[in-house]
Amino acid sequence: MNNTTYINASGQEPTPNRVILIASGGLDSTTLMHRLLHEKKEIFALTFDYGQKHSKEINFARKNCEKFDIPHKIISLQELTQAGLFGNSSLTSDREIPEGNYEDENMMSTVVPNRNMIMLSTALAYAISIGAGEIYYGAHAGDHEIYPDCRPSFVGAMQHVARLCHYWPIEIKTPYLHVAKGDIVKEGLKLNVDYSMTWTCYKGGKYACGKCGSCIERLEAFKVNDIEDPLIYQE
Amino acid sequence: MNNTTYINASGQEPTPNRVILIASGGLDSTTLMHRLLHEKKEIFALTFDYGQKHSKEINFARKNCEKFDIPHKIISLQELTQAGLFGNSSLTSDREIPEGNYEDENMMSTVVPNRNMIMLSTALAYAISIGAGEIYYGAHAGDHEIYPDCRPSFVGAMQHVARLCHYWPIEIKTPYLHVAKGDIVKEGLKLNVDYSMTWTCYKGGKYACGKCGSCIERLEAFKVNDIEDPLIYQE
Repeated sequence: MNNTTYINASGQEPTPNRVILIASGGLDSTTLMHRLLHEKKEIFALTFDYGQKHSKEINFARKNCEKFDIPHKIISLQELTQAGLFGNSSLTSDREIPEGNYEDENMMSTVVPNRNMIMLSTALAYAISIGAGEIYYGAHAGDHEIYPDCRPSFVGAMQHVARLCHYWPIEIKTPYLHVAKGDIVKEGLKLNVDYSMTWTCYKGGKYACGKCGSCIERLEAFKVNDIEDPLIYQE
Repeated sequence: MNNTTYINASGQEPTPNRVILIASGGLDSTTLMHRLLHEKKEIFALTFDYGQKHSKEINFARKNCEKFDIPHKIISLQELTQAGLFGNSSLTSDREIPEGNYEDENMMSTVVPNRNMIMLSTALAYAISIGAGEIYYGAHAGDHEIYPDCRPSFVGAMQHVARLCHYWPIEIKTPYLHVAKGDIVKEGLKLNVDYSMTWTCYKGGKYACGKCGSCIERLEAFKVNDIEDPLIYQE
């Protein structure tokens, strides 16, 4: 790219190998962090506090970034939550977290309206500012049915707009988009991910509940790998 | 739409005629507000405080909303500014606001990285939460060259992703996308817009500077209508 063209522009043109990772502290994005470390990417991590009941995941994101000396910003979106922009999502309101499988219709309450687009658009601003050419986020195959903002059609549309939103294109990368959670764990085990340092349960209690859709999917991902989840579960 | 399908979903399906307006307090979005009032839309306004030097525009947005009893939320994105996500944009950093025409290359510094996508993605969350089916923003023909996130290709890409980001589609509307600022003022004069209640100057001083790209464009928009801008300018 020709730096002279954009000498006056806000931001800086992409530096090769510099990437942004949206790190939730969950299983998928923590595995993705290890993959990017393995690929020797220069990682800048972003974590969002949007008032989720399971905000303890943020602390796991922080610990993993500290472990690997990854520059880490924790961005509060509580302003949006408090202004009522996320409505009645059960992850951010008084509404009860549903139990059961992701296939169940009641899991629709766990969608946080347009959360992923807000996270990605914020990450794009950061990418433009620090000269990162790629943004990684951990959407995976199990998310598609229930979460509109994890579906391949949504990801494709975001990839398109990310190439148009500034003077130079930014790439959004979702390497697990068609990968089942069991296969993500399989990869993570090879990469020596310490899964005791990740959090998945939507209820955010002292121990994982083992009953919400998120816990059930996680437990199955370990089961298909014939390995025990190192997290402590209730009862 | 069939409400029974999404009984458990976060948010609420669109109510006919309910819309969100991104109201900056500037000339374009204030004219758009009057157009929507004329069309008898049920307006919910969103204004963003992203650390812009010309934050006095926010007060004009507030006053116009009060005048017309429009529910108004002012959302602070200062968290993002302070975290450095908007980099070195001259609108939000120590960098000096350039003087001259929008065509000048130095105006590139006034781009706030990905600001419009962040505003639109936030507005989409709000739309989903309150059951608004449309989001209006005031991108206009004069913006295209300098602002990537006002170009028709960007707007088209955002319109596409807005239809995919939740269980039901939301429409992004930009009625001035191909309208010159002079013609926006022409429309606004017919709609009795009080342009003394709008703010445009990027410098955000006591009086408008008359020298930044934003002022120059505004002054020309009044000039082509053979009318004097009611704002007070320096000297």
